[in-house]
Amino acid sequence: MLSKNTLKFIKSLHQKKFRKQENAFFVEGGKNVTELLASNFQVSHLLFTSKFANENHSIINKFSGEAFEVDQKTLESIGSFQTNDAALAVADIKPNEFIEIGPKDWAIALDDVRDPGNLGTIIRISDWYGINKIILSMESADFYNPKVLHASMGSFTRVNVFYTDLKSYLMESKLPVYGAYLEGDNIYQQNFGESGIILMGNESKGISLELEELVKYKITIPRFGNAESLNVAIATAIICDNVRRQSFLKGQNSL
Amino acid sequence: MLSKNTLKFIKSLHQKKFRKQENAFFVEGGKNVTELLASNFQVSHLLFTSKFANENHSIINKFSGEAFEVDQKTLESIGSFQTNDAALAVADIKPNEFIEIGPKDWAIALDDVRDPGNLGTIIRISDWYGINKIILSMESADFYNPKVLHASMGSFTRVNVFYTDLKSYLMESKLPVYGAYLEGDNIYQQNFGESGIILMGNESKGISLELEELVKYKITIPRFGNAESLNVAIATAIICDNVRRQSFLKGQNSL
Repeated sequence: MLSKNTLKFIKSLHQKKFRKQENAFFVEGGKNVTELLASNFQVSHLLFTSKFANENHSIINKFSGEAFEVDQKTLESIGSFQTNDAALAVADIKPNEFIEIGPKDWAIALDDVRDPGNLGTIIRISDWYGINKIILSMESADFYNPKVLHASMGSFTRVNVFYTDLKSYLMESKLPVYGAYLEGDNIYQQNFGESGIILMGNESKGISLELEELVKYKITIPRFGNAESLNVAIATAIICDNVRRQSFLKGQNSL
Repeated sequence: MLSKNTLKFIKSLHQKKFRKQENAFFVEGGKNVTELLASNFQVSHLLFTSKFANENHSIINKFSGEAFEVDQKTLESIGSFQTNDAALAVADIKPNEFIEIGPKDWAIALDDVRDPGNLGTIIRISDWYGINKIILSMESADFYNPKVLHASMGSFTRVNVFYTDLKSYLMESKLPVYGAYLEGDNIYQQNFGESGIILMGNESKGISLELEELVKYKITIPRFGNAESLNVAIATAIICDNVRRQSFLKGQNSL
């Protein structure tokens, strides 16, 4: 049976402070939990409803951590989802390790992207475009925030993240930095090379001044109407699409 | 002074039923309210803080409806924002009028896009790309939902919407329909003509079967990684970008 202490432990993981202290985080919902169990994350606790158990026998049988069958109400009282009739799992936070970006790689760097929904959506986008290295400033939203994990729709298991001092990181990197600005060069006319770092700024302030000097190419999504700006996750998606599109079409032409 | 009845009236507009009955809606926050007042919407009530008044003298002087200076707490108790130190305004709902799409026009059609945040984001995107005609199925999220208006970041004032039976609308339209699917033709290789309708489906079910036969081109955003899908607002942005990008580059080549 689920002890009061375990319950208290899992509930504490809503807060970043306790996630850091316990080096653990939780994930909710059928899809996210099955993706978590199929990943290389170390899962310590699995809470599931009888419905989830019926649909996922083999997953539960293979699971070597602490497993508890609970009712839907319990899942909803522990997690952040209003409705969760499936599962919730606790896993270890991965060490914050340096990410090397190879000479044919693309990566995304986030300068204080604070909104958890935006970060989760960017993780999903980066997984879609196969640009699964994300470098984040220390003030960016926490990868293990339940809202980030939820918005990532399972993609959090396939993306590598590294929180660091962005200025030092970009200074040491040899790759060109493409910074998203409202008044840079048109991305449609940008010659993206084989590799680079796509730098996206804070939701209200954009890219900070101290990083500006490290930006090699200021790029802009052309505007055809009157909206003042685009959301940072939308802008990230459009830039990733332009980068991949260009190399796709180059490949086509060289066939 | 703000009467109890006026307060009650504005609060009732949180619900679609009362918005329809009163033919009115409300808008919150400094940016949205100033955009509303600068638009052709008929604004009946304006509630503002002394802070907003100091920054917007001329706007308030020109306003001919009922104006009330209130404190921040009142604004927050009436509206949906946790924090609103600026203004809230009530305006008339516009008639739901047929939208004609010209031979050089692009429009977006939404087949049961239910999430207000998604609809608001799509409105902002359509305004950015100058594709400001949106045709919505009757079951789509309500344009006048406070979450839609908020997510649109003021773009709701510049976009025309028409709620209708999508099947009849698309059948009568002579423009080609480009439907977003997970397994259609690569948008990078699609020859977008001068005009068309971009059809986006419901968040979980996609485009409904009854509309499928009206889709001339099934299009797909190519995937380079492993995410299962993209959010509908993100996908809309990428498709709009590809449409505009193609005509931009064609224009460049013909110079």
